[in-house]
Amino acid sequence: MEKPLILVSNDDGITSRGIRVLVEAMQTFGEVVVVAPDSPQSGMGHAITIGDTLRLEKSDIFGEIAAYECTGTPADCVKIAKHYVLKDRRPDLVVSGINHGSNTSISVLYSGTMSAAIEAALEGLPAIGFSLCDYSSEAELEHVVPYVRQLAAEALTKGMPRGVALNVNFPPKREQPIQGVRVCKQANAKWQEEFDERFDPYGRRYFWMAGNFVNFEEDDNNDEWAIANNYVSVVPCQYDLTSLSAIEVISDSWEF
Amino acid sequence: MEKPLILVSNDDGITSRGIRVLVEAMQTFGEVVVVAPDSPQSGMGHAITIGDTLRLEKSDIFGEIAAYECTGTPADCVKIAKHYVLKDRRPDLVVSGINHGSNTSISVLYSGTMSAAIEAALEGLPAIGFSLCDYSSEAELEHVVPYVRQLAAEALTKGMPRGVALNVNFPPKREQPIQGVRVCKQANAKWQEEFDERFDPYGRRYFWMAGNFVNFEEDDNNDEWAIANNYVSVVPCQYDLTSLSAIEVISDSWEF
Repeated sequence: MEKPLILVSNDDGITSRGIRVLVEAMQTFGEVVVVAPDSPQSGMGHAITIGDTLRLEKSDIFGEIAAYECTGTPADCVKIAKHYVLKDRRPDLVVSGINHGSNTSISVLYSGTMSAAIEAALEGLPAIGFSLCDYSSEAELEHVVPYVRQLAAEALTKGMPRGVALNVNFPPKREQPIQGVRVCKQANAKWQEEFDERFDPYGRRYFWMAGNFVNFEEDDNNDEWAIANNYVSVVPCQYDLTSLSAIEVISDSWEF
Repeated sequence: MEKPLILVSNDDGITSRGIRVLVEAMQTFGEVVVVAPDSPQSGMGHAITIGDTLRLEKSDIFGEIAAYECTGTPADCVKIAKHYVLKDRRPDLVVSGINHGSNTSISVLYSGTMSAAIEAALEGLPAIGFSLCDYSSEAELEHVVPYVRQLAAEALTKGMPRGVALNVNFPPKREQPIQGVRVCKQANAKWQEEFDERFDPYGRRYFWMAGNFVNFEEDDNNDEWAIANNYVSVVPCQYDLTSLSAIEVISDSWEF
């Protein structure tokens, strides 16, 4: 059997610690190719580069492993990997991360990490985005490696349900070890933003966006609960956003 | 009864023709406040500004109507509108657009127009993103105005099903008039990218991303069919990406 081909990307950029840990974990499974942003792209959501050019340069940052850094977004990286770098070679798995920071709940919508995974899912490829719920660039990562390997192994052998990518979040390193894996829902929550108003040295106003996370969940079948209780959360995310129940409501009650 | 408060944003920027048409259409319903990007933000997906500052300036571009231009993304605009510009005033409706270009099918994922609407839906506000399937900045827009008004009126009187925003696309101006409105699904399709490789005057390689749209649909209950057949498409989009069926598949067959 041919060795699996695994494409690795992320949104923190090719020099981040998270992608290095992910590349090393994937090496045990097969051939790894890295195409990642040349600079941090956090919060880029599913942005793509339209109306501007892209650069792509080979990088020796991972030694023998083929690696490319791209000026674009995470979604751009997967597109150029699929259609230019790998051309007719189809990856068996696409992984993104390990993100330095949580992508639980609605943060998935803003996540560059998950946009790379969703972009791969759009191509019909099994894809997983990995995030660590610790924003520190120095955060401990070793405790999540066995779970990264296990989930990648399952995706390689069992494939992925059609039309989804997995959003995997890991608890930060705590005294208590990780309790296991929960396949669960995206928590119903929101960011309550605050805009910190300041003035620059020229007297012009500017803002920093800040916010508090507000969790509306009372149950235990969601990713916020999983992380709080020291489980790995696995949320299968679909890129078909259609709400079938809302189609029914609107068709029945709205007049056109 | 107090006049409704309507927040207007977009992704083509505050000077685009599409937002002007939308502002004029909304004026008939109540008080309009505009917070829109100061420059085009197409393809920004659900990007937000993290780790950088935002500027917000008052604009007189719409005369008497309160308008603000923001250096951020469409999602940033809705956040700063909600939490800073409007503070304790809750909009009765948030509309985004009219985008110059299609946001049907999976283009919804890349759409700045829809990210503004989804951002509003996250706040529990009725929200609609409007797009015209014609990329020309000079495209005819008048034929869609009655539909913009009708959909806004329905949203104002009937509200929106919980957890969704509407993705509304309009056919380009054709000889045949618009045939009506279809509440339907996001078409199953993809972009088949091509990367056009070029060299700059200094001999360095760069790329333009281009692509062809590949439609996998054979049925008529989707937005691509609607637009092709001269209907307005209305797709209710949910921001909870969880695939419940995939939770079941993975829980049953994967080993952790």
